[in-house]
Amino acid sequence: MGDKKKVCIIGSGNWGSAIAKLIGYNAQRLNHFDSIVTMYVYEEMIDGRKLTEIINQEHENVKYLPGHKIPANVVAVSNLVEAAKDADILIFVVPHQFIKKQCEELKGKIKPNAVGLSLIKGFDQAEGGGIELISHIIKKILNIDVFVLMGANLAGEVADEKFCETTIGCKNPEFAPVLKDLIETDNFKVSVVDDADTVEVCGALKNIVACGAGFADGMGFGDNTKSAIIRLGLMEMIKFAETFYKPSQLSTFIESCGVADLITTCYGGRNRKVSEAFVKTGKSIEELEKEMLNGQKLQGPITALEVNHMLKTKNMENEFPLFTSVHKICTGALKPDAFIEQLRKHPEHK
Amino acid sequence: MGDKKKVCIIGSGNWGSAIAKLIGYNAQRLNHFDSIVTMYVYEEMIDGRKLTEIINQEHENVKYLPGHKIPANVVAVSNLVEAAKDADILIFVVPHQFIKKQCEELKGKIKPNAVGLSLIKGFDQAEGGGIELISHIIKKILNIDVFVLMGANLAGEVADEKFCETTIGCKNPEFAPVLKDLIETDNFKVSVVDDADTVEVCGALKNIVACGAGFADGMGFGDNTKSAIIRLGLMEMIKFAETFYKPSQLSTFIESCGVADLITTCYGGRNRKVSEAFVKTGKSIEELEKEMLNGQKLQGPITALEVNHMLKTKNMENEFPLFTSVHKICTGALKPDAFIEQLRKHPEHK
Repeated sequence: MGDKKKVCIIGSGNWGSAIAKLIGYNAQRLNHFDSIVTMYVYEEMIDGRKLTEIINQEHENVKYLPGHKIPANVVAVSNLVEAAKDADILIFVVPHQFIKKQCEELKGKIKPNAVGLSLIKGFDQAEGGGIELISHIIKKILNIDVFVLMGANLAGEVADEKFCETTIGCKNPEFAPVLKDLIETDNFKVSVVDDADTVEVCGALKNIVACGAGFADGMGFGDNTKSAIIRLGLMEMIKFAETFYKPSQLSTFIESCGVADLITTCYGGRNRKVSEAFVKTGKSIEELEKEMLNGQKLQGPITALEVNHMLKTKNMENEFPLFTSVHKICTGALKPDAFIEQLRKHPEHK
Repeated sequence: MGDKKKVCIIGSGNWGSAIAKLIGYNAQRLNHFDSIVTMYVYEEMIDGRKLTEIINQEHENVKYLPGHKIPANVVAVSNLVEAAKDADILIFVVPHQFIKKQCEELKGKIKPNAVGLSLIKGFDQAEGGGIELISHIIKKILNIDVFVLMGANLAGEVADEKFCETTIGCKNPEFAPVLKDLIETDNFKVSVVDDADTVEVCGALKNIVACGAGFADGMGFGDNTKSAIIRLGLMEMIKFAETFYKPSQLSTFIESCGVADLITTCYGGRNRKVSEAFVKTGKSIEELEKEMLNGQKLQGPITALEVNHMLKTKNMENEFPLFTSVHKICTGALKPDAFIEQLRKHPEHK
């Protein structure tokens, strides 16, 4: 990489716009970054004006992060290749269903020694079932190193500059401090670990656990039961990473990407909320997605399905009773009130 | 120990009475325990009747756990030595300020090969400042092995038989399965670890973290900040145990006694609640103890003081910014709004 690293943020949703605040601030302030940060924005018309135009003139993403100024050195660009072609660091923060198509578009058109940092939570479905990590997909298509950032980071609170932490998973000792510099502020503290796959796996699996926490809330259980579910979920996350993504370090699970994000998601997130409503109303997940999420898909049930495919293949469903029963409850194969009964058989208590 | 182990529960408060439900149930059901369980009850008069008499006739502790039946094979005894003298297993579940006096009373009057299980949370103050573990005090005075039980176990929810977990710390492979049998039910699942000191340390330190969580709630921070505080608190708990109670295993902190109890305490407990009020009202901890706790002492500030004494002695205050600033805020040496500023310097983010 050259002296002044150029940064491109690919994505401009709620989380992308929040992180653009931090990255824009740091790129301007720190000498080793080019102060101009490009942000790829999927073009939309808002009240007759282009979203890129609004962002570049008002410095606000009025659609996805209204009420927050994005630094003026963050420049919205509606052409993906144009935004990314000169970048040394590519920040990926798009909904995960678009990532393959966008990487295909970028293929051969970015700097060969660029690196990626994926902020995208959730798995992609592998061919033939099972899961594929988003960072692996990017790496495979673009043939660049891809690191990850995950943590207890509800976008609105990050944009509000409420104190929080995050975790970067980066094996490369040359880039680790650069990425930390680019992201960290007084209110957004970064820890770097080298265990990137584990960091990414945490960011997806937590949503399954949050469904379980929501079921318990819906059934009227209290604090003891909820923290038992969170803990048993954590133990299954650890076992899953150790089984499918070894070597995985226990210490990574007590980083922000692990236990902290899990807590936030099990108390504040939408997987918890919809799952609570699932129990209380008796409606299907699909109905609730329509009513509560404007038709958007809930991540937990999808991840539970993909994970279940892998567990079935290995004949390991019984060793992950929480993941397995969340999946079965979401599909209607098991009643919610059978959830606790499944946890009573947990191998953790053997 | 003989074939049928006799059990005595020393203490009959809220938690003692809740655990008596489980122990009474198991002692009656399992062949390797004597079905009669004695429970030492500090005698009080309730509406002109003795509390022991009420418990033995109505099988309910109307003062400390009203609305719950205690099994009839649990026999309340007002004389401590009488209750304990024939027991093979002594369950200690009294407020920690009474433990020394009661152990002195029992000294030389219990079976020499009895074992203890302490359910008492919090530290005792060591002579000259610093802390002493309750299990160590019992062991020293009575010269018996003492194990511990700690977990995310709000007493009311345990009595209500809501599903939860707990952790027993027991190095002795002969007693570990016996204690698990005695305590475990379908709704109260037990994991045993051999790292007893760590289990006990978690049970006390969590209250300091809960004060920090309460300060954040009082200042209006959201889910990101709160989970960052819980996680940084967990990291200080780990470092404290590794510094003062080595060898301490990381895996113990992801048992119920660690992360799960910490979550419960930081969301549901009274240290959190009073600390939130401390920030919102500007009143002192002492005033709030009078108003909110009927004059009872809040555990977190006391533990923070004792811990601070140890950290000062080792010149380690700066390595534990959360513990240190909670202590300073409770004593008025630091304003609550300086709390986050202290966390920004946390060694975890170096």
